Amino acid sequence: MFESASLEHRVGKASYEREQAHLRAALLDAQYELGLAGRFPVLILIAGVEGAGKGETVNLLNEWMDPRHIRTTAFGPPSTEEAERPAQWRFWRALPPKGQIGIFFGAWHTMPIVRRVMGEIDDGDFTDAMAEIQRLERMLCDEGVLLVKYWFHLSKAQQKTRLKSLEKDPDTRWRVTETEWAYFKLYDRFVEVCEPFVRQTSTAQAPWIVVPAADPRYRALAVGRHLLAAMRQRLDEVPAAASGPRTPSLPAAADRLNVLTALHLDQPMGKPAYERDLEKWQRRLNLAARDPRFKALSAVAVFEGNDGAGKGGAIRRVTRALDARYCESIPVAAPTEEERAQPYLWRFWRRLPRRGHFALFDRSWYGRVLVERVEGLCTEADWMRAYGEINDFEHSLLQHRVVLAKFWLVITKDEQYRRFKQRETVAFKRFKITDEDWRNREHWEAYEAAVCDMVDRTSTATTPWTLVEANNKYHARVKVLKTLCEAVEQALAHVGRRRDRKQ
Amino acid sequence: MFESASLEHRVGKASYEREQAHLRAALLDAQYELGLAGRFPVLILIAGVEGAGKGETVNLLNEWMDPRHIRTTAFGPPSTEEAERPAQWRFWRALPPKGQIGIFFGAWHTMPIVRRVMGEIDDGDFTDAMAEIQRLERMLCDEGVLLVKYWFHLSKAQQKTRLKSLEKDPDTRWRVTETEWAYFKLYDRFVEVCEPFVRQTSTAQAPWIVVPAADPRYRALAVGRHLLAAMRQRLDEVPAAASGPRTPSLPAAADRLNVLTALHLDQPMGKPAYERDLEKWQRRLNLAARDPRFKALSAVAVFEGNDGAGKGGAIRRVTRALDARYCESIPVAAPTEEERAQPYLWRFWRRLPRRGHFALFDRSWYGRVLVERVEGLCTEADWMRAYGEINDFEHSLLQHRVVLAKFWLVITKDEQYRRFKQRETVAFKRFKITDEDWRNREHWEAYEAAVCDMVDRTSTATTPWTLVEANNKYHARVKVLKTLCEAVEQALAHVGRRRDRKQ
Repeated sequence: MFESASLEHRVGKASYEREQAHLRAALLDAQYELGLAGRFPVLILIAGVEGAGKGETVNLLNEWMDPRHIRTTAFGPPSTEEAERPAQWRFWRALPPKGQIGIFFGAWHTMPIVRRVMGEIDDGDFTDAMAEIQRLERMLCDEGVLLVKYWFHLSKAQQKTRLKSLEKDPDTRWRVTETEWAYFKLYDRFVEVCEPFVRQTSTAQAPWIVVPAADPRYRALAVGRHLLAAMRQRLDEVPAAASGPRTPSLPAAADRLNVLTALHLDQPMGKPAYERDLEKWQRRLNLAARDPRFKALSAVAVFEGNDGAGKGGAIRRVTRALDARYCESIPVAAPTEEERAQPYLWRFWRRLPRRGHFALFDRSWYGRVLVERVEGLCTEADWMRAYGEINDFEHSLLQHRVVLAKFWLVITKDEQYRRFKQRETVAFKRFKITDEDWRNREHWEAYEAAVCDMVDRTSTATTPWTLVEANNKYHARVKVLKTLCEAVEQALAHVGRRRDRKQ
Repeated sequence: MFESASLEHRVGKASYEREQAHLRAALLDAQYELGLAGRFPVLILIAGVEGAGKGETVNLLNEWMDPRHIRTTAFGPPSTEEAERPAQWRFWRALPPKGQIGIFFGAWHTMPIVRRVMGEIDDGDFTDAMAEIQRLERMLCDEGVLLVKYWFHLSKAQQKTRLKSLEKDPDTRWRVTETEWAYFKLYDRFVEVCEPFVRQTSTAQAPWIVVPAADPRYRALAVGRHLLAAMRQRLDEVPAAASGPRTPSLPAAADRLNVLTALHLDQPMGKPAYERDLEKWQRRLNLAARDPRFKALSAVAVFEGNDGAGKGGAIRRVTRALDARYCESIPVAAPTEEERAQPYLWRFWRRLPRRGHFALFDRSWYGRVLVERVEGLCTEADWMRAYGEINDFEHSLLQHRVVLAKFWLVITKDEQYRRFKQRETVAFKRFKITDEDWRNREHWEAYEAAVCDMVDRTSTATTPWTLVEANNKYHARVKVLKTLCEAVEQALAHVGRRRDRKQ
């Protein structure tokens, strides 16, 4: 992997100056075109060995191009706000929007490599981490991000020379601390870990570009040339009408039996039983949320369902059990301008709750495989890959000990008609019914197929969908509360057990 | 101030139930209208004595209205990210956008009151804090925020009764800790401090509404009724064509002498002197930014100037001196959708740098008194009040030890013409010239008047404008670098002195 990069590549001063002038003008040109077109973001990952001139190269890129449209982020130790969210959160919040360039130092590759070198994780964990990175990067590329990854390499001898020369110069002496020398001692171990890492996280869409870094002029031109070519290629490309290869369509069911029609939607529950059960579960949920152990957790609930199925009413029965200071309900409507300039999951990442908090999503990331699929707002390839992306997203929530509950509220088509008509006549409900609701109703069967596929592909043992029979609102609300409450209680018990094991 | 509120107000159960049903429907109606119109945000501040049912009332508001469009924030100890920014930052980031309701627990009033009660600040500091709050709230109101402030009051006897009854109930026992009883012992001192606070921070636009809080039904109706009336009044109001009273126009200068024409724009500097000075100041700025003491500071530089005056070039000479990982350049163009739903300073607050970082604004909050004034994008009253608002904003930066440098780059009209023509012909500069630039040029005199007013009204001893003679780019770039560098160096020396005093 690093054979070519360990050779003594050099570029003379004169030829560097000549090429640099051209490169610079061409890069600036490409950057302005990128900004004007605003079609895609450019994300540059910088990685590699210590002392390989990563910082200098990034500063040079900022010098060659217009630094006002480049955002450079160095990921150090996480802030408290970052530590309270899943590990990827800090990367999502720093993603460049369309038309902009982002440069990440020490992004998602750093922790797995360092932890593997230090022996904190084993080979299996390391393989998992690489697979996770592959999926994250594939998703970013599929969402249109131009992802360019530079791996700065020095041979062991070159690194030693470099650290010594940095130490000698009074201007750069501060950069070589005991940490750098400690890392140098681990050089062979780092290469042992990085070599397979670079190989396995090099994909067709986003290969690592290994940069021989011993000669400053050589490495600058290597990066500059490659970045220019990558940007030019994408800028000059005519966007294809349908992106990606055509995916095989999902099979339609051969009969009318599916996970929705198999439900008994008219569940019996009278008012007295409702009031008794509602109070019981609200009380239990309230206690669970106030449990001191919940400060080590957080909770996300997703509410989806047919129009008029009673999502809003169910959410309100949940918020009433909780303290408004620690609970946010998030209505998901059309994305804002800033959200449209990012991958579709971005706007959900940005709303993830802190520790000890609840977030209730009224509609969610499942819009991709529901409304966007049915209305043709994205391609089939886009919503087909979304199942896996959503599973990854939810997996990262679980890993961070976020309690996740997902509800699909189901009513019959007749019941929907009755509710729509009622909304049109009752004064304080008139805001809740629009022409769009009537239009969506015409796609009833298409939505039904989409929901069945969604449940099949995103309901897992750890992130199950709860199908809620909602013709009877009483039953639906109690089932939602009970399910959410039990999920939180179960997670609390788990916190207790983890603590016990540690003692 | 609290006389009426200390009386034993009561509401019977039957009349409560009756009124509550009406209130609830009317509040929900008002909330939907607010969302549909999206004309203004509603911000509700909740304050007052411990155990007065503040939390219950807020939960009730969430229950009466649609919690999906209410965002409740309780301000506890600041996170690390918050602590690295000026004190107001955490409030700005939680502000509700237009069409939404925000509820703040323990907002900007909490710290001054607690610190005064504890004797950590004296009367003078307390008066300053109140004046600052008045100005902040006036600005929010002027920006269209409907600001409603509830002060929950209990007499000393009522508070004691309330804490005891909370303690008795196993469900609420957890809420009464030693802190609550410690605060109770300070009851008289709190009233002594709060009474003048409530009086002096009650303004015509945003008076405190003192809520007698002993009876849960009474306090709920008092808050609900008032909030409904406040929302209804604003919703039913026909927006006036010109908002606010007409302000007296600023006088035009009686001759051609002003701070700009008094400058000698053609400052001599040849290339050799430029290269020597550039290197010198870049080196010094680089050292200053790397000084360990800079981790206790941050820096904000504002670049404004005539079109074509060389702001971009000057910024690039600064970024080249700095490490891209700790420096962000922020080009300010038209606000995004999310930014337009907030007060105009919001989008600058959100970009304030962390400790140890630089933020370089290419155009800035001064747009309000420059382009918005000249192009008539806001009313005269709006840009007239902006001078004071901007001074307050910059004062809060200084208080937080943010180094602030403000540059106005000046060129002659002839020099601008020459540069525009050159931009049209040089390939890599063609992105920099648009029809808008030529149009702006027609307003040359209006901009000149606006700049002179801006300098007069926002250049203070601690936040001075640096007017940069920019017909000679060499001179301009060196002056910018030198000024910024000296400002940082001076601030570093100050950090040193503060430390010395502590030892």
